Amino acid sequence: MTQEYPTSLGTSDADTITLLGQNLADDLMGKVGFGELTFWMVTQRRPTQSEVRVFESVLVALADHGFTPTAIAARITYLSAPDSVQGALAAGLLGGGSRFLGVTEDCGQFLDDVLREAGEIPTDDAGFDALALAAVTRAKAERKFIPGLGHPVHKVLDPRTPRLIEIAEEEGLHGPHLRLFEAIGRVHPQVLGRTLPLNGAGVCGAVLADLGLPMALLRGFALLARAAGLLGQLAEEQRTPIANDIYMSVDRNAVYVPPEPE
Amino acid sequence: MTQEYPTSLGTSDADTITLLGQNLADDLMGKVGFGELTFWMVTQRRPTQSEVRVFESVLVALADHGFTPTAIAARITYLSAPDSVQGALAAGLLGGGSRFLGVTEDCGQFLDDVLREAGEIPTDDAGFDALALAAVTRAKAERKFIPGLGHPVHKVLDPRTPRLIEIAEEEGLHGPHLRLFEAIGRVHPQVLGRTLPLNGAGVCGAVLADLGLPMALLRGFALLARAAGLLGQLAEEQRTPIANDIYMSVDRNAVYVPPEPE
Amino acid sequence: MTQEYPTSLGTSDADTITLLGQNLADDLMGKVGFGELTFWMVTQRRPTQSEVRVFESVLVALADHGFTPTAIAARITYLSAPDSVQGALAAGLLGGGSRFLGVTEDCGQFLDDVLREAGEIPTDDAGFDALALAAVTRAKAERKFIPGLGHPVHKVLDPRTPRLIEIAEEEGLHGPHLRLFEAIGRVHPQVLGRTLPLNGAGVCGAVLADLGLPMALLRGFALLARAAGLLGQLAEEQRTPIANDIYMSVDRNAVYVPPEPE
Amino acid sequence: MTQEYPTSLGTSDADTITLLGQNLADDLMGKVGFGELTFWMVTQRRPTQSEVRVFESVLVALADHGFTPTAIAARITYLSAPDSVQGALAAGLLGGGSRFLGVTEDCGQFLDDVLREAGEIPTDDAGFDALALAAVTRAKAERKFIPGLGHPVHKVLDPRTPRLIEIAEEEGLHGPHLRLFEAIGRVHPQVLGRTLPLNGAGVCGAVLADLGLPMALLRGFALLARAAGLLGQLAEEQRTPIANDIYMSVDRNAVYVPPEPE
Repeated sequence: MTQEYPTSLGTSDADTITLLGQNLADDLMGKVGFGELTFWMVTQRRPTQSEVRVFESVLVALADHGFTPTAIAARITYLSAPDSVQGALAAGLLGGGSRFLGVTEDCGQFLDDVLREAGEIPTDDAGFDALALAAVTRAKAERKFIPGLGHPVHKVLDPRTPRLIEIAEEEGLHGPHLRLFEAIGRVHPQVLGRTLPLNGAGVCGAVLADLGLPMALLRGFALLARAAGLLGQLAEEQRTPIANDIYMSVDRNAVYVPPEPE
Repeated sequence: MTQEYPTSLGTSDADTITLLGQNLADDLMGKVGFGELTFWMVTQRRPTQSEVRVFESVLVALADHGFTPTAIAARITYLSAPDSVQGALAAGLLGGGSRFLGVTEDCGQFLDDVLREAGEIPTDDAGFDALALAAVTRAKAERKFIPGLGHPVHKVLDPRTPRLIEIAEEEGLHGPHLRLFEAIGRVHPQVLGRTLPLNGAGVCGAVLADLGLPMALLRGFALLARAAGLLGQLAEEQRTPIANDIYMSVDRNAVYVPPEPE
Repeated sequence: MTQEYPTSLGTSDADTITLLGQNLADDLMGKVGFGELTFWMVTQRRPTQSEVRVFESVLVALADHGFTPTAIAARITYLSAPDSVQGALAAGLLGGGSRFLGVTEDCGQFLDDVLREAGEIPTDDAGFDALALAAVTRAKAERKFIPGLGHPVHKVLDPRTPRLIEIAEEEGLHGPHLRLFEAIGRVHPQVLGRTLPLNGAGVCGAVLADLGLPMALLRGFALLARAAGLLGQLAEEQRTPIANDIYMSVDRNAVYVPPEPE
Repeated sequence: MTQEYPTSLGTSDADTITLLGQNLADDLMGKVGFGELTFWMVTQRRPTQSEVRVFESVLVALADHGFTPTAIAARITYLSAPDSVQGALAAGLLGGGSRFLGVTEDCGQFLDDVLREAGEIPTDDAGFDALALAAVTRAKAERKFIPGLGHPVHKVLDPRTPRLIEIAEEEGLHGPHLRLFEAIGRVHPQVLGRTLPLNGAGVCGAVLADLGLPMALLRGFALLARAAGLLGQLAEEQRTPIANDIYMSVDRNAVYVPPEPE
């Protein structure tokens, strides 16, 4: 028996390229945006224009935040191996793990778990508040952090948060994950004894979950947004290089201490 | 003296996130598309809507082509390390080198070199034909391939080629790189003795060069498009896994031959 | 205040290169083996010759196992981007995650956790058996797998297991992690109701833990061993290429199925 | 016709693991060193003990040089994604490109090209000097650098150079690539008008070429050595973290400049 490999993404023959069952040249190029296509490739369903606007708002929100570890890794790898743009980009993306880019996925997943366990979606704010209160209380009892709560710089308000909520409302996509996250924002002070902001990466996770995107791939959208941001960083590095200065600054300030065997 | 690191991309303080000198929440989210922002981050200039449409057409054209080596590498890495989506994505992008994704950059660069050396941009098709004829003749004399000429599957016509030319024309962005590439399409048979199609990846390079994007980063746009395609591949792998079947097919058909020292 | 970056690894001035407090040229090159240096760099302590022999036995045991996912990813990335050996190697290593290369780390960590919780190290086999019995019983109650138990191919005996135990004994390095793992091998049938082999990757984890290597870096040694194996794979790919055949086999056996929106 | 994939590396059945035609457990583990196995896997030939000593001296020479870009990239990626040691290691290796780790390969290749073109290997120093003089003269005429000549820190003498030559002599492996490189060291001042040191990475390339290792994989050995060095860096990062200080130092010293559209 010959092995077969099913796919519904791209294929081609001598005259035609097919993607998602569409004719790539005639039906997609010039007619479908890049964010729209990404959503479609992942879900196999063409998103509405409202969904596209919310989805692209998330990608815009996550694209770049200056000299993050991912930006530094990409620039310094480009310094070291300028012949391989793919290597610099990959090195930057490899920092997209649990600590800096993982919040989007962790928050979406946390909210989804709470909703799934509840079984029934609340129908009003009071219902979401009750669900949120139970979830925050349990997290505290288990000494766990709520993903998406708090931010090292935006200690009072992350400006992306109200804006993304506003856009979701405008597009009629203010769904249960986001409503639950907002409820967490309302109720957590009474459990934790202090008020933390809902951070933007977390709201992005809530919104992506409401869009029906696969939970196990939420981090992937943060990575795609960051890939675009890293192109911006690499273009700036080509115009105004700083990676060698970073390297020199580390090297020059190295202090040699004798090894202490463990 | 303290080292300083200049940037014009992202920065933030307690209340505000700034990107490209814009207020991220108020001015960009919900107002600027993802492709538009990418173009802006790379060039520091907001593109026109015509430029966005052409740019996104390129990204759509390059996003996915089925079971390419990059798709196989991403899926098989995801099989092996499902805990690290960033690793699977990075592994896929690392195949974006000279052989499979490099044509876009190589073609744009080749056309740009020819135009730069010519000094003056031709004003009509006859002028482009003369320039193209000289370039193809010289490449043949130097036994070099013209990047973007020919395709292993689309032996007569790559369907992306006429479509992308059409879109560039519709948007008034039918520039000198693309016109030179079209001229190469017209004149090469009289030098090479056979007729090859202009491939889509090459046309993408010509179009990106006409958009004024940095020559040294053209490969980066192919990589960004592919990053989106790889999310599609990973989502499909989550729904309908094939990586283990690929692995088994290779492993099962391994034939052990005794080592022959070199 | 200027930032300072302490290190005890490498440094250099105009005339001298220092590594681990040693003169690289005079004290290390030609006098210290590669495995020995690796151990030393990680622990900051020069290992004994016995430790080096056990450590290198682990690296030899883990170097290559044929057409694993990591080997396929490295070869297919090399096919696609032959200009970047570092990219092919990196792509291969990125498969070194939880599923295929993680057993070494997981097993070492599991054994270490059991020993730490026990507080006191048993002094005879009966003591290790009691500890093992409690650990296996608890794992079963928590529906968790014991890392290192069982192997998809070596269903009765992994040949690396008795050999590595023998080498550790010969060198007087038969420590508590390995003894606990052997005890698990003896007692698990009475809990699980069937007899599974101790796999080689797990034994490697036990042995590395007994060598005092840092628990949080055990996976790193499996990756280093695999890096050497991947050089072997890439050298073979240069001599006898198969990556294009793998690619063609997948591409040719693709079956296009219409997308089904989620 | 079923596709077959030949290999002479690893394979296994229920009872046995074979590597390079040897029984892994009985013939390799505990009997063959890690460097020795690496050489064997790449060349399919078991090296002599002299070859192993020279080969491991190269790996030791290249393992670590402090806070290089590769070390910074690995540490900062580990900071950002501590859940993925493989990602941090891969990010570090991706800096192993043309600029920082490429000298070894470039120098070995350059020497090999000169020897191949010469056809006949010189038999005495005078012959090597004549060949070197022609090669340096031609490189100067073509405005090309000689790979391996000069070093940013070791402006007079790279201490690894005489030591590696000494080890090669001790082991009777002082071959034509190394002799040609030494001749370049003697004759280049009369062509270039100044005296540059032969750097250690270049000598490593000459020595690896003399060992008969495949030219297209020389960079791979520098990468393997660096992989071991990166484990040392990551272990140190776990004990004495500096990556967050590097990140903070870059972030804190960022200076925002308004974008200037290209």
